[in-house]
Amino acid sequence: MFNRNYSSYLLEDAVNQFASLPGIGRKTALRLALHILDLPRENVGQFASSMKDLREKAHFCPVCNMISDDDVCPICSDGKRDHSVVCVVESLRDVLSIENTGQYHGMYHILGGIISPIDGIGPDDIHIGELVRRLEQNELREVILALSTSMEGETTSFYIYRQISGFPVTITTIARGVGFGDDLEYTDELTLGRSIANRQVFKP
Amino acid sequence: MFNRNYSSYLLEDAVNQFASLPGIGRKTALRLALHILDLPRENVGQFASSMKDLREKAHFCPVCNMISDDDVCPICSDGKRDHSVVCVVESLRDVLSIENTGQYHGMYHILGGIISPIDGIGPDDIHIGELVRRLEQNELREVILALSTSMEGETTSFYIYRQISGFPVTITTIARGVGFGDDLEYTDELTLGRSIANRQVFKP
Repeated sequence: MFNRNYSSYLLEDAVNQFASLPGIGRKTALRLALHILDLPRENVGQFASSMKDLREKAHFCPVCNMISDDDVCPICSDGKRDHSVVCVVESLRDVLSIENTGQYHGMYHILGGIISPIDGIGPDDIHIGELVRRLEQNELREVILALSTSMEGETTSFYIYRQISGFPVTITTIARGVGFGDDLEYTDELTLGRSIANRQVFKP
Repeated sequence: MFNRNYSSYLLEDAVNQFASLPGIGRKTALRLALHILDLPRENVGQFASSMKDLREKAHFCPVCNMISDDDVCPICSDGKRDHSVVCVVESLRDVLSIENTGQYHGMYHILGGIISPIDGIGPDDIHIGELVRRLEQNELREVILALSTSMEGETTSFYIYRQISGFPVTITTIARGVGFGDDLEYTDELTLGRSIANRQVFKP
């Protein structure tokens, strides 16, 4: 047996680095490290500098907190989009999901988290103050709350609602219900119950 | 929609880099890139240099082809191990698996692949010649062939056997059979059949 895990400290180091990433175990980390070893030198150099550049050069849009290369992000600086509607989401990943639908053409506001007392995240730890300031400084028509339906998400939505309900703005939330293509039989009771309660006029 | 995939070229670049690794899809790559963005700067710097160092500084043991920091790897330079037995394996991962058992105290010879005409890998593309040279230059007692039982593995074992059968060395192969703790009911027919054919004297 080795008196350490691998035959090389360099390999061990790379495996440890990969294994520190979320969702990557030690077996996968070893596979990735051996892949790095097989790559041409310049590719590994590009890989390494790409990581450093992301961390050192990317910054956050001062308006919506989106990761951006420029001062203001491409969505906030897009004149063709509707600047009077702001969709409040937890993270960049939610923005990407909504953008993928091609159905939304307004602005975003990324909170960077949700209120979660268990994790020690209070209202001041996420970008709610910036949202209030956006409402103070701009005439907005609508704020869409697109947070998760977890307890933390509902708490955050309610907190935001209380903070901004004094502004002359319509506050909406995304529709919840049985997904398109889902079988009623396999839909959870809460979703099915709510989607019956929130039924809409049938427009054929 | 963005006219590209993400709001930042730096992010897009990092996601592409992660997604180029084996077994990492675009969703996972995005999660990893966002994790990089959340890390302290110095950690990202360490991550990046660890990858570059692995590729640029690690080299292969001239005796057994193991990844190594020093000239000769820790196993080949270990005086307490049995230098007269060489276990032939496909890759470093096999070495790690065998070392984990704690049952083997000889040397290794890493082929760096197996003969696979479909993938264009012939006998000269893997380190068989080096194995023959080891036999010429050292008095070895035993060569253990520990390759997989796939067609490629069997072909490679047979090719090596023909190359080294002229040397005064015992050529063995690892035992195949029903795994410890496995139910006979769920063992594939080939394995079960062979393990009956290769039955051994019961030593209670």
